[in-house]
Amino acid sequence: MIEMEPIGTVRSPRGEVEDDNWGDVVSTIELRADLAAESLDGLDEFSHAEIIYVFDRVTQDKVVSEARHPRNNPDWPKVGIFAQRAKGRPNRIGTTITRIVKRTGRILEVVGLDAVDGTPVLDIKPVMREFLPREVVRQPVWSRELMANYWHTQK
Amino acid sequence: MIEMEPIGTVRSPRGEVEDDNWGDVVSTIELRADLAAESLDGLDEFSHAEIIYVFDRVTQDKVVSEARHPRNNPDWPKVGIFAQRAKGRPNRIGTTITRIVKRTGRILEVVGLDAVDGTPVLDIKPVMREFLPREVVRQPVWSRELMANYWHTQK
Repeated sequence: MIEMEPIGTVRSPRGEVEDDNWGDVVSTIELRADLAAESLDGLDEFSHAEIIYVFDRVTQDKVVSEARHPRNNPDWPKVGIFAQRAKGRPNRIGTTITRIVKRTGRILEVVGLDAVDGTPVLDIKPVMREFLPREVVRQPVWSRELMANYWHTQK
Repeated sequence: MIEMEPIGTVRSPRGEVEDDNWGDVVSTIELRADLAAESLDGLDEFSHAEIIYVFDRVTQDKVVSEARHPRNNPDWPKVGIFAQRAKGRPNRIGTTITRIVKRTGRILEVVGLDAVDGTPVLDIKPVMREFLPREVVRQPVWSRELMANYWHTQK
């Protein structure tokens, strides 16, 4: 077993887990008090940051690895948990690329973080073009349908 | 503290940590024996997978959060650990988008995984275009210079 200590916490206007409409959500990540604020120095030279966090509201009985229909939609094929980005997964890790708004001391403000208020954050990484896919991305139709409203704004 | 159990292990021709030339490295990820093989079902419908792993060879005394020059290069500015993707970071998590070659049972073969042989894997996620940056990516010059040979092949 590997032990992890959250480096900070998400502060979000969203207190409840929702499937869609994360596009215009503005959140902050507050670093743990014993971590040096300078650990964020230079991050705002990047436009985007990848946030690695824990779906901490998922209880162990909701973690599955058997193939199932994403969002229980019978129109979509049964796929394994590692072919989905659903939260009920072993180790309950979420990773999301967000747009950086600003950094102030030990607080990072971002847009488009799909994590609810109070979510523990494990890591923050700068997004470099070199770490994005270097070939055309291919994905099944069900995943495009599932994502149709994910980033839609609520306005 | 949050406990994580690796879901599998990296098998790589690279046994030693190296800075560069990861582009043509072919690795496999072998799922833990008690995880259902079907947890990978459907993943090969995607061209790319994000691998979340642990830099397990980094000892606690090598984890820093103070600002420093990336790769100790004085030509580059001092930046905090969360403005870098270096391995000596709190929780020692690495995340890399790899190209999927094939999946056979509980084994996933990928190209471009920058993790050495024996690395514990925490999660595997399909890459969806919708989770890539939705705006132009901006990044500082030092990061482009640092990445210049990262994916270069060794041939």
